[in-house]
Formats: sequence, structure tokens, C-alpha cells
Amino acid sequence: MAKRLVLALGGNALGNTPETQLQLVKNTAKTVADLLEEGYQVIIGHGNGPQVGMINLAMDLASAADEKIPYMPFPECGAMSQGYIGYHLQQAIRQELLNRKMPQEVAAVVTQVVVDRDDGAFAHPTKPVGRFYTKEQAEQLALEKNFTFVEDAGRGYRRVVPSPVPQRIVELNVVRQLVDGGDVVITVGGGGIPVIETPEGLRGVAAVIDKDKSSAKLAEDLGADMLVILTAVDRVCIHYNTPEQEELSTLTVQQAEEYIAQGQFAPGSMLPKVESCLQFVRANPQGKALITSLERAKEALSGKTGTVITL
Amino acid sequence: MAKRLVLALGGNALGNTPETQLQLVKNTAKTVADLLEEGYQVIIGHGNGPQVGMINLAMDLASAADEKIPYMPFPECGAMSQGYIGYHLQQAIRQELLNRKMPQEVAAVVTQVVVDRDDGAFAHPTKPVGRFYTKEQAEQLALEKNFTFVEDAGRGYRRVVPSPVPQRIVELNVVRQLVDGGDVVITVGGGGIPVIETPEGLRGVAAVIDKDKSSAKLAEDLGADMLVILTAVDRVCIHYNTPEQEELSTLTVQQAEEYIAQGQFAPGSMLPKVESCLQFVRANPQGKALITSLERAKEALSGKTGTVITL
Repeated sequence: MAKRLVLALGGNALGNTPETQLQLVKNTAKTVADLLEEGYQVIIGHGNGPQVGMINLAMDLASAADEKIPYMPFPECGAMSQGYIGYHLQQAIRQELLNRKMPQEVAAVVTQVVVDRDDGAFAHPTKPVGRFYTKEQAEQLALEKNFTFVEDAGRGYRRVVPSPVPQRIVELNVVRQLVDGGDVVITVGGGGIPVIETPEGLRGVAAVIDKDKSSAKLAEDLGADMLVILTAVDRVCIHYNTPEQEELSTLTVQQAEEYIAQGQFAPGSMLPKVESCLQFVRANPQGKALITSLERAKEALSGKTGTVITL
Repeated sequence: MAKRLVLALGGNALGNTPETQLQLVKNTAKTVADLLEEGYQVIIGHGNGPQVGMINLAMDLASAADEKIPYMPFPECGAMSQGYIGYHLQQAIRQELLNRKMPQEVAAVVTQVVVDRDDGAFAHPTKPVGRFYTKEQAEQLALEKNFTFVEDAGRGYRRVVPSPVPQRIVELNVVRQLVDGGDVVITVGGGGIPVIETPEGLRGVAAVIDKDKSSAKLAEDLGADMLVILTAVDRVCIHYNTPEQEELSTLTVQQAEEYIAQGQFAPGSMLPKVESCLQFVRANPQGKALITSLERAKEALSGKTGTVITL
């Protein structure tokens, strides 16, 4: 039986324009095809930071400028980003598979992820999204729409949204069906459209779920053999960006916890990636997690680079 | 074995704002659940006219106003509309099924549809999309971006895009897998993201495929037992809006062809719906097509209203 691999792809790796994205997804497609050729089933979770920010900013600007454009809530912008990114990814991967005469189908599935309405993150929004505002604009919007703003490095004020923990992938069984059928599946785009449970059913909330955490949850739920988190570096480092910088080829849960306690991994950057790997290997003790770059993912699978995290 | 039913849902039936759409999809969800309770498998093809127009207009306005917003091509806007509408539909249908303790999963699949680059429609764009421009703006854009514009009822100039015939549903096998697995599938949103075949692979084109034609193609390819096209009236009429108006409960292909020759059905309105039904029953001689309203779809299935079209 094919080994099952969840690949977490960063939204930053997809660029800022549709033309760039169309080019960059071709690199992703090559890596995905390489992994399939190695005998893995591949499920892709991707980020949407720049894309949902751009869509949200565009919808905000347009609805302020033209009364015919409705105000578009944040989760709906996330759903749009899933369509936009899923379309490019599935087109590129399908073509790469055709070029290599490989038989797999490719499917991008619109995916909701349930978060806990009592998640502490809702009281402490941290994830900046969308455009910059002046202090006056930010104060006005905070009053009108109950948004939270932070000053961002002297460049102005930005809305911040909560980043709650993923609890349940709503379309999990759909994804499982397609994976069992041998398809490459693109899911939990942007960490998933964040929804909370209410007596009337699911309801979208303004939040961004960390895509590495959603991918780890997906890997856990699918009983994956591997979780591969792609990032800008080939390997996890300690003493990063200092003369003592050291690349790690392996990392156990215990070692990782010590390094985390030492503050070796930057919050909002390497830390959530390492934490997502820990979450996965704790839940699936037979599983392996791997942090590496898109370019060297294939080499990393054969141990030539990358950081492998095990229980 | 369950009978298979493709439901074509109009984009106009989804309203113009996210709040309205969230309400209206609940009606769709009830009808879908009714059809499932009658023993049908249900596959939903939906339109996106107002929604893709709104997204395209918003992206145009925003990219003109802010250099950080990239110009967003039309097929990408269509992909966004599939995410946006698919999210609301799948959320509402899933909840209605939970309320009724029904076990089906619901999946919205990002879907591309191949059109012929030599389709005559590309030489004669007819489908208005997006915002109104002044004559001067339209002439400028026509030069800059090679867009086609038409004057629209004295309200200004609007871009028109081609409406080519759907040739092939790229994600058909994915849809088939999910339907075979018993899921409710939402697909060919807005008629599908229109793509042409090129030596390098599929490429998005600025076009809007008629969602009834794509739904008919889908019904044909899936070997569906029924194609149900929802519209604003309960039954197809001849002598529509005249004192001689007559509702039709049944229609054969031959009768339909006579009425079409008489000009009984309005182009851009009832005509493409009737034509899509003819296409389906010609391809699937055992199949039945039905044109009716969302509200009375269940009654129409038992013959109380609606127009049934057969070979």
C-alpha cells in the first residue's frame, strides 16, 4: 500500500500576483510528481497569507469606493483564495503528471476547519491581514466594525485577526475518499476556512488558521506516514543567524522541547512549524515529520538534507 | 442503485451580497435534501453571473486604485467565485443533512472546463461582465487590454466576454469518484473555469460558459437519469407574456425544435435552458430533463408541475 504524505506549502511561496503564482506552482508540481514517483500518495495543504490579504484588501477598497460592491467578510475572502490557489495548483500538477504519463487525478476541495469559539486566540488577535490604515482610519474602523488594529513597524496600522487552533476538518471524509481513490488532493487552503459551531450550524469567523497546524491535523486524521513542511531553508537550525549556527538533520521530540525552551525557534516562523511536527509525531508515533525546502524535498526524503523529526 | 440527478442552479438565485447568499443557499439546501430523500444522488452545477461580475469589478477597481493589488484575470475571478459560492452551498447543505440525520458528505470541487479555442463565440463576445465604463474609459481599455465593449441600455459601456460551448470537464473523474461514493457534489461553478488546450497545457481564458450547457454536459458524462434546470418560473411557456400564454407540462425534442423555430423561447433566457435539455436527452435517450423553479422542484419530480423534456 502506498505511503501517505501530507505536504504543507507556504502561501509566501506562491508570490504576489497571478502571473507569478502560475509560474511558481510549476515548481510545486514538479516536487509533487517527484514524490508520487517515489511511491507516495500526496495531499497538499497550502497557506494563503499574501493572497487572502490581497483579496481582502481589494474587496475592502472596492466596497468603500462603489456601492454596488458588497462588504466581503474575511472567511468568504479565504474561500475565494482557496478557489484561486486551488485552480492554479491543480492545473499545474495535472499538466506535470500528463507530461510524465502518470495516471493520478488532481482535486482541489473547498475546505472548512472548525475552531473553538472559546479559543484564547480570539481574545488576542495576532495575525496581520490586508492593507495599512492611518491611525484615524483604524480608530474609525475599530469603532464601526469592532476590528482590532496594531501599528506595524511604523508603516501604519493593520487589522489583526485571531489565529485559533484547528479542531476538526469538516470535509475530512471527502478528502479521504479522494486519497483512497489515488488522487492528489489540495485541501485546508489557508489553513481552512475558519468556522465555529453554533446551534444553527457552522458559521465563518474572521481568523486565519496556521496552515502548518491544519496540515498536521490532516496528517494525523488521515493516518499519514509523513508530514512534510516546506519552508525557505533546507534544514532547521539552532543558533540561527549567529556564528554558532548549526543545521539539524534529525530532531527528537525531547530535543525539540529543549530547544523550544531555549528560544531557539522564532515565533511566527520556525516555531509553529516545529510545533506542528511535534503534534503530528506525538499523535502518530510511527509517523515521521520533515522540514525542508521545496527545491530539495526529494533529496530530503532520501536523507540528503532536511530535518527529520521523530518521537 | 440510486438514480443520478444533475441540478443546474442559477447564479441570480444566489443574490448580490454574502448575507443574502447565506440565506438563499438554505432554500437550495432544502431542495437538495428533498431530492436525496426521494432516492436521488444529487450533483449541483451552479451559475456565477452576478458573483463573478462583482469579484471582477472589485479586483479591477482595487488594482486601479492601489499598486499593491495585482490585475486579476477573468478566469481567476471565476475560480474565486467557485470558492465563494461553493463554501456557502456546502455549509448550508451539510447542515440541512445533519438536521435530517442524513449521512451524505458534501464536496465543492474547483472545476475547469475545456472550450475550443476556435469556438465561434470568441469572435463574437456576448456576455456582459463587471462594471460600467464611460465611452472614453472603454476605448482606452479596449486599446490597452484588447477588451471588447458594448453599450448597455444607455447606462454606459460594459465589457463583454465570449460564451463558448463546454467541450470537456477536466475534473470529471474526481466528480465521478465522489458521486460513486455517495456524496453531494458541487461542481462546474459558473459553468466551470474556462480553459483552452495549448502545447504547454491548459490555459485560462476570459469567457463565461453557460452553466446550463455545462450541467447538461456533466449529466451526459455521468450518465445521469435526470437533468433538472431551475429557473424563475414553474413551467416552460409558449406565447410567454401574451394573452395566449400556455404552460407546457411535457415537451418532446421534436416539439421543442418547432417552438424554437417559431422563436417561442427568449435567447439568453429560456432558449439556452431548453437547448441544454435537448442536448442531454439526445445524448442520453433514457434520460429525462426537467425545467422548473427551485421552490417546486420536489413537486415537479412527481409530475405536479414543471416541464418534462424527453426524446
